[in-house]
Amino acid sequence: MIKVVGWGVGKMGRGILDMLMKKQGIEVVGAIGRTTGVGKDLGELLGFDSPVGIKVDNDAEKVLSSARPDVVILSISSYVRGVADEIELCARYGADVITIAEEMAYPFRTEPELSKKIDSMAKDHGITVLGTGVNPGFVLDSLIAALTYGTRSVRQIKARRVNDLSPYGKTVMEEQGVGLSMEAFIEGVKDGQIHGHIGFLQSIPMIADALGLEYDEIVETREPIMSTVERKTDLVDIKPGMTAGCSHSAVAYRNGVPVITLEHPQQVRPELEGIETGDFIDIYGDPDLHVVIRPETPGGIGTIASAVNIIPQVLSSPPGLLTMMDMTIPHCIMDDFRNHIGKGGNIREGSKGDMGQDT
Amino acid sequence: MIKVVGWGVGKMGRGILDMLMKKQGIEVVGAIGRTTGVGKDLGELLGFDSPVGIKVDNDAEKVLSSARPDVVILSISSYVRGVADEIELCARYGADVITIAEEMAYPFRTEPELSKKIDSMAKDHGITVLGTGVNPGFVLDSLIAALTYGTRSVRQIKARRVNDLSPYGKTVMEEQGVGLSMEAFIEGVKDGQIHGHIGFLQSIPMIADALGLEYDEIVETREPIMSTVERKTDLVDIKPGMTAGCSHSAVAYRNGVPVITLEHPQQVRPELEGIETGDFIDIYGDPDLHVVIRPETPGGIGTIASAVNIIPQVLSSPPGLLTMMDMTIPHCIMDDFRNHIGKGGNIREGSKGDMGQDT
Repeated sequence: MIKVVGWGVGKMGRGILDMLMKKQGIEVVGAIGRTTGVGKDLGELLGFDSPVGIKVDNDAEKVLSSARPDVVILSISSYVRGVADEIELCARYGADVITIAEEMAYPFRTEPELSKKIDSMAKDHGITVLGTGVNPGFVLDSLIAALTYGTRSVRQIKARRVNDLSPYGKTVMEEQGVGLSMEAFIEGVKDGQIHGHIGFLQSIPMIADALGLEYDEIVETREPIMSTVERKTDLVDIKPGMTAGCSHSAVAYRNGVPVITLEHPQQVRPELEGIETGDFIDIYGDPDLHVVIRPETPGGIGTIASAVNIIPQVLSSPPGLLTMMDMTIPHCIMDDFRNHIGKGGNIREGSKGDMGQDT
Repeated sequence: MIKVVGWGVGKMGRGILDMLMKKQGIEVVGAIGRTTGVGKDLGELLGFDSPVGIKVDNDAEKVLSSARPDVVILSISSYVRGVADEIELCARYGADVITIAEEMAYPFRTEPELSKKIDSMAKDHGITVLGTGVNPGFVLDSLIAALTYGTRSVRQIKARRVNDLSPYGKTVMEEQGVGLSMEAFIEGVKDGQIHGHIGFLQSIPMIADALGLEYDEIVETREPIMSTVERKTDLVDIKPGMTAGCSHSAVAYRNGVPVITLEHPQQVRPELEGIETGDFIDIYGDPDLHVVIRPETPGGIGTIASAVNIIPQVLSSPPGLLTMMDMTIPHCIMDDFRNHIGKGGNIREGSKGDMGQDT
């Protein structure tokens, strides 16, 4: 069996553990939490009918040294700085790492020094480290890159991901500046409390480096989405004239001309103003391509699924800090996950024949 | 420079050579033809203003032994049997092979013995062999697989590629049964003259094996698309009541339930009856996904582009008969192709450090 530890038991971490428990060829050998759920049986935490015999533990070193996982899925932070030490600990126990930390999808531009450090540390220990997720990691970067496969040239890319914030919790609502006056929103952006989407500074370089597109600068904007109607959920009651969310976009320019434009307006209940959610990707080149995924690839489920579905590729990859562009074409897995390890051409040779048990 | 030979100078072969000549880091070192264009300068054949100093030659062995390409792009047949000997010749000269032969996209089910032979021969000579193209190879298989990345499970896949046959030549029109009475069409399907799309028996196993979906049988149908209006092109004049093309579909069943349904209605000028072209992909699972590419990813340009864009992955892959599912995420390349060789994680180790010059 492929032995997996889930590190982080927040909403995403629990979703990942739940999916792992239901897949063939995978054995969940441990769960690491900070405070929530610590000491509880994983079955209880996930709402199963019966306990599964694994207790959520807050002693990571103890879990890693006794469970000896092949891979750890890390769901504890959005930032490189929030996972670097944890990755190093996994490396010391010879476990590959998959993380949904948004910045880790392509950390080389925003955290160049720390990326180098993680890469060389991963190589020293013979482990693979990958950041993935639905966005960044897929919809607004590696999927766009894949869609250009049938084009002779690409001049410009415009993509827009329109989603509904309603399923998200209080933290996300605050980060997106939901339920404020326009003035309070602008103030929140200024002082960094409202940061919109984490991922544009990963997705843009990821696409550009993959395709060999050049740009001089990336300009980000965060604008309030003002509601003209009442928008109500369990968590918020947005009156007309208040913000329903944040329209965050980033444009990469070359000589003043947009090369890559990514837009991600996130708001509560967009359907109340007739706005359809979806992923809209326009590629301008030879030929042009117009791709629509409607409704959008779901954020929560998509991130959970991506972290689990990529396990075989990560186990089959050479050591180092890799990205989705280094993976063989990713996909859902319906049979035994072990059938997919080392499948195909890009098999890791030598150092990983022992599946990460090299400490 | 990456040294490439184009083998086949039909419409696709010429398109591939034209694209190769315009890309950075690639040197076209030879062109092999059978009859058309033999003896002509490649520049003349491609309609350039000036000659390029490479003559189309019908002596493949002479071209391969003197040019010593890193990779040969083979555009001479749709069938495994139509490229097997040519692949062996490339192997003897240590050149990787990319072919747009539709059956080669996933030859394991329709040609199991010959696939094994090609695979072991490729391994003996240390070369990589890949079948690619827009379809099969991408839109109705590897792209569908990629789109499932953000799903926890997949129950059923339905995809429909609606295109216009007008840009194609006489052979394709005949293979698709254009401009016939219904009776003549049915007769043509019966005696094998009208075969519709080559690729379903590749795309379905490719998706199923990638995802681990099981099926018992594949049922193919070829139905006439009867025109109710006059549809005219330079090549054909279809009167009302005549066939405008072939609606070819294939369904993979598991216990009588469709698991994968692929439909490819191909016809001349569908817009005259208000039919929009496009690639329509519906994935049913957790969650459902509905993807539309409108108009469709172009067949001709897409196949040309795919054969060229995949060069770095093929040069970086281990020896053997591989498929698109063994490639790292494919994409268009706008800078020097050499920047993309061995990029990322799945670097070929050992045998291919000399880039195919191993004979």
